Amino acid sequence: MRVHQMWNGYPDLKEDLSVVLKLIESHIRVHNKTVETTIKELVHSGGKLLRPAYSLLCAQIGPDNDKDKAIAVAAALETLHMATLIHDDVIDEADTRHGISTIHSKYDNKFAIYSGDYLFCVCFTILSKHATSLAHLEFNSRSMEKILSGELEQLDSRYRSAVTVKDYLSRVSGKTAQLFAVSCYSGAIESQASRRHTMNAWNMGHHIGMAFQIMDDILDYQGDCNTLGKPVMADIKQGIYTLPLIYAMQANPGAFQPLLDKKSSLTDEDMVSLTELIKKYEGVEKALLLAQRYTDKAIKQLNKLPDGPYKEKLYQITAALLNRTV
Amino acid sequence: MRVHQMWNGYPDLKEDLSVVLKLIESHIRVHNKTVETTIKELVHSGGKLLRPAYSLLCAQIGPDNDKDKAIAVAAALETLHMATLIHDDVIDEADTRHGISTIHSKYDNKFAIYSGDYLFCVCFTILSKHATSLAHLEFNSRSMEKILSGELEQLDSRYRSAVTVKDYLSRVSGKTAQLFAVSCYSGAIESQASRRHTMNAWNMGHHIGMAFQIMDDILDYQGDCNTLGKPVMADIKQGIYTLPLIYAMQANPGAFQPLLDKKSSLTDEDMVSLTELIKKYEGVEKALLLAQRYTDKAIKQLNKLPDGPYKEKLYQITAALLNRTV
Repeated sequence: MRVHQMWNGYPDLKEDLSVVLKLIESHIRVHNKTVETTIKELVHSGGKLLRPAYSLLCAQIGPDNDKDKAIAVAAALETLHMATLIHDDVIDEADTRHGISTIHSKYDNKFAIYSGDYLFCVCFTILSKHATSLAHLEFNSRSMEKILSGELEQLDSRYRSAVTVKDYLSRVSGKTAQLFAVSCYSGAIESQASRRHTMNAWNMGHHIGMAFQIMDDILDYQGDCNTLGKPVMADIKQGIYTLPLIYAMQANPGAFQPLLDKKSSLTDEDMVSLTELIKKYEGVEKALLLAQRYTDKAIKQLNKLPDGPYKEKLYQITAALLNRTV
Repeated sequence: MRVHQMWNGYPDLKEDLSVVLKLIESHIRVHNKTVETTIKELVHSGGKLLRPAYSLLCAQIGPDNDKDKAIAVAAALETLHMATLIHDDVIDEADTRHGISTIHSKYDNKFAIYSGDYLFCVCFTILSKHATSLAHLEFNSRSMEKILSGELEQLDSRYRSAVTVKDYLSRVSGKTAQLFAVSCYSGAIESQASRRHTMNAWNMGHHIGMAFQIMDDILDYQGDCNTLGKPVMADIKQGIYTLPLIYAMQANPGAFQPLLDKKSSLTDEDMVSLTELIKKYEGVEKALLLAQRYTDKAIKQLNKLPDGPYKEKLYQITAALLNRTV
């Protein structure tokens, strides 16, 4: 199993993540072998496995370190993440993710929709097979509902140039941050951590998710296709306005309006103008400051967790993740 | 709550189905009220509620008649059915279902994909909140997986004119029949029915599902847009070949090939020719015979269930359903 190189410095964690991938793969059983292989390829497409990694580390907070349970929960979280990615790809009409063809461009939307649905089911099968209790499972379902209703909100706000920082944060909170929070929380709760520490884990995950998504959105404004693995400025064309643009717009809404009114017919030239306006009004710099604030909040929660070798790893990974340039 | 008129003769069941709809509705909570209303409208779009009805009736097989549990399981099944319908609509590019606009044509595919995902989560939330055990839940997840992998198989067989009766039956078995089987099984198991009776319920549901889908496919060859509520011959244009066509093709493959080779560019005239060919080779008559065989098998399983008022209802509903003209 190929696990992302970012885990090379953490051999135990890397080994666990490899078992996570194996567990997911073992659940993918489709009669048609071409279909099965395609879905399995997705499992091994080289994502960072951040959510299962945080979940596994947080499964060391409490006294009960049942490795099998921790790995099952991590596997369910990554499966859920993959399911939403496949559907996001259909929706974003993105052609590549991590540099390889997405399922929907390689086959078609139909295949992508059902594959995502299939992975949703696999996620629940893994959870119900390994989770501690029905109450825990209900919590996970509700968390997933919240993630999906976050996606639904986002669709509604497209092309609304009056979108505020608050709108943006509420969208990120319901989407990325929620899944990071659930990941840390689920690990903690499986380890029988105290209620206080479980909440610390949830909050830490939430803040990490917020900072992670802001950084991710900032990268869209900085790199080019090669370094980002994702079409630059794609979000703007689709009417999804992220933090650097929102901050810059606040400084001078009138300067942006004529460009944004063009919606999906924005030309490359328009894109250059937009980038310059965002630079002029320091959209990226302001967004970076907010990401830093969330990172600080995450670290504050992390400080409150009980001592242990896992804690140092959480510091290092979080610091590396949130100062990332790739 | 508007419940389909087909249940007018069964006031108790109709009342329970109304509670099922209320339970589903109570779980739909999206911050954006427009989105929430749209999803709720779907819940009340007047589907027949067959799966929850069978589940509720089978929940009277065993000695434990916990109404709340039975209603929750029925609600989860209908929610799952609605989630797959929404995604099927995106995939089929069908414009209306039951005569009202489908979610995807009213809004767009993006909204439809996330709404379906949201309902998947609601299904699991309802199940995990009310189901008897994790084992039962795992069984439900696996059944859903099987349904989705059935959908994936179907995509792969599009436009394959060499598709056999066996291929067709295996597709229907993994899709419609599976959900009918799970519905009957889940009701039975919640009522603490014996293992033998639970298996009878499963088999009965499976056979009903097979007969139901064959009848549904036959209707595509018989009515017009108004009586069917579904575009006639839509399946053929999309490369989905159903039983009447497959049977007719077996009699003279060469006669059909030139028409089917046109794939989605089939004209209305071609459709008329196809209909005449199918009539000539008695495709519908042969399909009806097979539907009758599945109905007989279903009744045989039903006969084996313990006596009770629910049993007469199952007879009546199944007979009405499978001889249906609408």
